[in-house]
Amino acid sequence: MKKIINDVNLVEDQMIQGLVKAYPQQLRKLDCGNVVVRTEKKQGKVALISGGGSGHEPAHAGYVGKGMLDAAVAGAVFTSPTPEPIYEGIKEIATDAGVLMIIKNYTGDVMNFEMAGEMAQMDGINVKQVIVNDDVAVKDSLYTVGRRGVAGTVFVHKIAGAKAEQGASLDEVQAVAQKVIDNVRTMGMAIQPCTVPASGKPGFELTDQEMEVGIGIHGEPGTHREALRPADEIVDMLLDKILADLDYAGHEVAVMVNGSGATPLMELYIVNNHVNDVLTQKGIKIYKTLVGNYMTSIEMAGFSISLLRLDDEMKALLDAEADTPAFKA
Amino acid sequence: MKKIINDVNLVEDQMIQGLVKAYPQQLRKLDCGNVVVRTEKKQGKVALISGGGSGHEPAHAGYVGKGMLDAAVAGAVFTSPTPEPIYEGIKEIATDAGVLMIIKNYTGDVMNFEMAGEMAQMDGINVKQVIVNDDVAVKDSLYTVGRRGVAGTVFVHKIAGAKAEQGASLDEVQAVAQKVIDNVRTMGMAIQPCTVPASGKPGFELTDQEMEVGIGIHGEPGTHREALRPADEIVDMLLDKILADLDYAGHEVAVMVNGSGATPLMELYIVNNHVNDVLTQKGIKIYKTLVGNYMTSIEMAGFSISLLRLDDEMKALLDAEADTPAFKA
Repeated sequence: MKKIINDVNLVEDQMIQGLVKAYPQQLRKLDCGNVVVRTEKKQGKVALISGGGSGHEPAHAGYVGKGMLDAAVAGAVFTSPTPEPIYEGIKEIATDAGVLMIIKNYTGDVMNFEMAGEMAQMDGINVKQVIVNDDVAVKDSLYTVGRRGVAGTVFVHKIAGAKAEQGASLDEVQAVAQKVIDNVRTMGMAIQPCTVPASGKPGFELTDQEMEVGIGIHGEPGTHREALRPADEIVDMLLDKILADLDYAGHEVAVMVNGSGATPLMELYIVNNHVNDVLTQKGIKIYKTLVGNYMTSIEMAGFSISLLRLDDEMKALLDAEADTPAFKA
Repeated sequence: MKKIINDVNLVEDQMIQGLVKAYPQQLRKLDCGNVVVRTEKKQGKVALISGGGSGHEPAHAGYVGKGMLDAAVAGAVFTSPTPEPIYEGIKEIATDAGVLMIIKNYTGDVMNFEMAGEMAQMDGINVKQVIVNDDVAVKDSLYTVGRRGVAGTVFVHKIAGAKAEQGASLDEVQAVAQKVIDNVRTMGMAIQPCTVPASGKPGFELTDQEMEVGIGIHGEPGTHREALRPADEIVDMLLDKILADLDYAGHEVAVMVNGSGATPLMELYIVNNHVNDVLTQKGIKIYKTLVGNYMTSIEMAGFSISLLRLDDEMKALLDAEADTPAFKA
């Protein structure tokens, strides 16, 4: 294992410290575990909390700030945070307007967030939740009943965050978050595995000629493994699966070409070149494109494509102001 | 070589196409080579042009937009663009206020930009230039007489771009660009090489235990090679060299922790954690911190630290609005 770290036991702590020190005007870390909150609490606004295992940086703490999240909770690498820090996060950000939990569909995350939500409700905090399950690759997986929640989560943060910032009620914010979930689909692939620091070994192995198609954001197996093909053919394969899952015809979409952590931007742009051509050819109008590292898997090399079917409300909320370390609009 | 591409001969073209298709409101590609310009030309404003070899994405085309560059010219990977496309770029963006060329100090870049500048001057365009040479690692290098120009270039784009946007004259924009150059120092390291697509082989080799210290952004040798050490010790080593080169005592600084392309954000945040501690301990006040992939080397794994000594003018210009694909403020 070759990493620029100090100690496998300090990775999560030092990473969160380093993030908060980079953006002290916007971010503050709670004393109880790796919970990052906005420095300025906005009274009367629905508060948004998300999180999950570490290793997906900039998700989720990089999306804490104006127009997106109020708190993010980071567990150990690829491990769900326990209910306690989630509960502390909820208490810290809760307002009279209530709290929305945005949970990626992984068994541990769902269980621990729900437990934390129940603890907060016993304190009289109004807590609701949505569960993101945008990955079309596999139905059930290593860590999931049902579809996995992956890069599409960032669209949920952005759009629900903008709705909350406008003063919408908890029901309204939950409804628009659910609308994003209902309209976003993602699929990914990888050519190089990642290594959880505490394990010291790659989570899987690929030969120099192989790629894993439909891979999860923890390196979980996807649909199949095959010989690496040209970028355009990979894009065709992923888009076929996404477009077969939801009817995008005649809709405007937001596109996210998301890098897995070690993928050079050069390759992500090459991927987007063909994504754009294919969608244009199919008459699907692209309203906005995001290309970059939004939901990573440590130093995995690969990418995912997310397509969000838009309506006027989601378009306006996607364009609304956001000022977070990792997402500005 | 394992890459998500279609054809080694199409990498630069498809990458630039993919970038421009992602941001069509902001970017336009000229027909003559890989020259990217702003869609809206601002008359009366000093126009800024930069560029160099491809492989440093998002540099430089990702910095084209409001408050930064007016044009970026991309050569083949790690190869200077020829004078012709630079000249075409200058002609496209030139206004009565003149054009500033921001050149990284590499022999080929300096020669070709200067030739293009002379061609444009023969057309009556007022062209001036600055040469960025922020890398403290080595004095002369494989491709350079004098110091290399590396990640500090992004500060020059940002601050000179803001000055131009405010309506300053060509002399004033050149002066503030030179002030940034005089006050910024950078040093980097790597644990994993990168592969130029057309060559198909890594530019250098490192064992599982080795790192290259003081490496250039094309993988050129640095000061030395040694066993990989904990992140904090690497930071100490790089900061020692930077702080010995310029007197930062009592000044406010902007910090850039720049990833080389395949370095996970997790590691960059861990690096920043110690950079912040060391500077704070030395009484050097941090005004702003940037952590991310700003000037990469394809899929090299490693990072550089840049420190910019600030005054009130540079602080205001650093904070001024910027709206480009890769840098928003």
